Amino acid sequence: MKDETGTPGLPGWASPRILDRSTVSRDVTVAPGMCGTGLFVGQLGDWTWEAVSALCGVDVFAARNRQGEPAYLSFYYFRIRAGRRFHVGALNFGDRLRVTSGLFNYGSESVLALHTVRRQDSDTPVDEGPFDPEAFYAGKDEDCLYVENFNRWISRGRTGSNEDLVRSSPPDFHYAELPRLPAPHSPRADYRNARTNRTFLDGEPPGRLPTGPTRLTYAVDATRDINGVGLLYFASYFSITDWALLRHWRGLGRDVHDFMGRTVLDQRMCYLGNADPEAELAIEVTGWVRPGTPHDEIVTVVLENAGTGQVIAVSTLHVTAEGTQ
Amino acid sequence: MKDETGTPGLPGWASPRILDRSTVSRDVTVAPGMCGTGLFVGQLGDWTWEAVSALCGVDVFAARNRQGEPAYLSFYYFRIRAGRRFHVGALNFGDRLRVTSGLFNYGSESVLALHTVRRQDSDTPVDEGPFDPEAFYAGKDEDCLYVENFNRWISRGRTGSNEDLVRSSPPDFHYAELPRLPAPHSPRADYRNARTNRTFLDGEPPGRLPTGPTRLTYAVDATRDINGVGLLYFASYFSITDWALLRHWRGLGRDVHDFMGRTVLDQRMCYLGNADPEAELAIEVTGWVRPGTPHDEIVTVVLENAGTGQVIAVSTLHVTAEGTQ
Repeated sequence: MKDETGTPGLPGWASPRILDRSTVSRDVTVAPGMCGTGLFVGQLGDWTWEAVSALCGVDVFAARNRQGEPAYLSFYYFRIRAGRRFHVGALNFGDRLRVTSGLFNYGSESVLALHTVRRQDSDTPVDEGPFDPEAFYAGKDEDCLYVENFNRWISRGRTGSNEDLVRSSPPDFHYAELPRLPAPHSPRADYRNARTNRTFLDGEPPGRLPTGPTRLTYAVDATRDINGVGLLYFASYFSITDWALLRHWRGLGRDVHDFMGRTVLDQRMCYLGNADPEAELAIEVTGWVRPGTPHDEIVTVVLENAGTGQVIAVSTLHVTAEGTQ
Repeated sequence: MKDETGTPGLPGWASPRILDRSTVSRDVTVAPGMCGTGLFVGQLGDWTWEAVSALCGVDVFAARNRQGEPAYLSFYYFRIRAGRRFHVGALNFGDRLRVTSGLFNYGSESVLALHTVRRQDSDTPVDEGPFDPEAFYAGKDEDCLYVENFNRWISRGRTGSNEDLVRSSPPDFHYAELPRLPAPHSPRADYRNARTNRTFLDGEPPGRLPTGPTRLTYAVDATRDINGVGLLYFASYFSITDWALLRHWRGLGRDVHDFMGRTVLDQRMCYLGNADPEAELAIEVTGWVRPGTPHDEIVTVVLENAGTGQVIAVSTLHVTAEGTQ
């Protein structure tokens, strides 16, 4: 299989493309290393770091702050909206995707990356910039995933502990050319709610009854949860949330196959803190279902450092247990 | 940063290069999604699948056998040789690597991929094919990882269970143009030993005393260990082995920081079977240390399906607890 540059191989072989000053696009073949929630979230995050590197004049992977200390473009708010036909669990080896990424200006310490992840076929139109935020937020394309990453530059504080992270941007991070997001779409109201109220919901969801709460203790897994610089890995927050969901569902009489067949229609994660490798997390899972459709659940998962009482993450998911139709 | 094609961005932005009929090369920036044993092993495996796709005329990611069923280029033998200065645990965000991959002919049902993973800097010579297997097997470059992947085409058998996998190659897998590996270097003796004797060692290592055995039970984690097609993910075998090593070391009085600071100088894995998502694994860890240098250990880990008694993997590691010098 050849692509138009004459290079043998697969989509994913060709370089990503810069469409304009704030938009990049890439063609991807789904590989084993990006299947499953944890791996796909990790891949999305790497694409955010690559987009910022390509468009903002900074090598995000090796970034340093003004003091010469490593600066990490850490994840603060992460949302994936999907459809019943195309969701993270539906990704299969060999699927062809087109990922288009648009960056938005949030000042010197932060940046917003929006990604559309579309199934690619011969009908898919030619990809052109600029990235359209209105279309993104209105978007209900059943063959598209809509991903939001709001990130902040941080460094380790003087103690060196993962619990002591401070804001810290690189001097070569050029953001002024990025467009500003239209204010109604800002994720700030969403994550402020999560930070304040430990849920992304606005009170109890109408017409639904509670399942749980399920309370669990999770020991940070040094063999998988720690990233290359010793911090709790951002993608692991999703894996840990899934770990809790699976156990919450076991309490509801479901088994591992129900879990593996789930469809996550929407998931939001707010990252409020990190943890040291010896940490234990106290996790609380609260679910809400409609009478008559118990497979359709809205779930909030709160991760708390059991030693310090600090909440390190809040996630709300809309998930169904039936799998792809 | 621009590369020579004028595309802004990082190494890793540019396409991989075909050097000759059996060799590809790529420049990579180490990202969070490839740090840590499990993630890096997963990335290496994807590079093997990409190399075979580029060179053998088949889309490995979407391959089908003659019956039209999905065919997976599954991992059978996986080895990573490293040095004290450059090992998997030493990878850091932003590191520049050059990965050169050579494929070797093992007939229609199998293939061998050899990868050199080198730290990249301005002194690194221009990369030219063909891949030199003699240099690979003799290689002791302290800034190079030497990776071997011996893979077999398999499909699910009629039962659909992960315990019933059968050989099964795609008709469009073109291997005849690949060179044959010089016989002395074949991994066959190595993996036959593992398969027969449940270790890669030739008996007890001279001059060393045993630690353990440590016996553990591990429940397959459906949130992380299952790949996109419902099989136990090949990279998870390494994560599970690490899980066992960490607990073996706790029994020896070491803690999570000793584990995180480890250097794995050499690791071999032989994949003998798969498991269903509900499976529990019985794991046995046997270590060998020299008196006076207890931090320097040779460890064999055997993973067995606790329900069936079938050994699904054997791994032998040479690992030190001191971390990078």
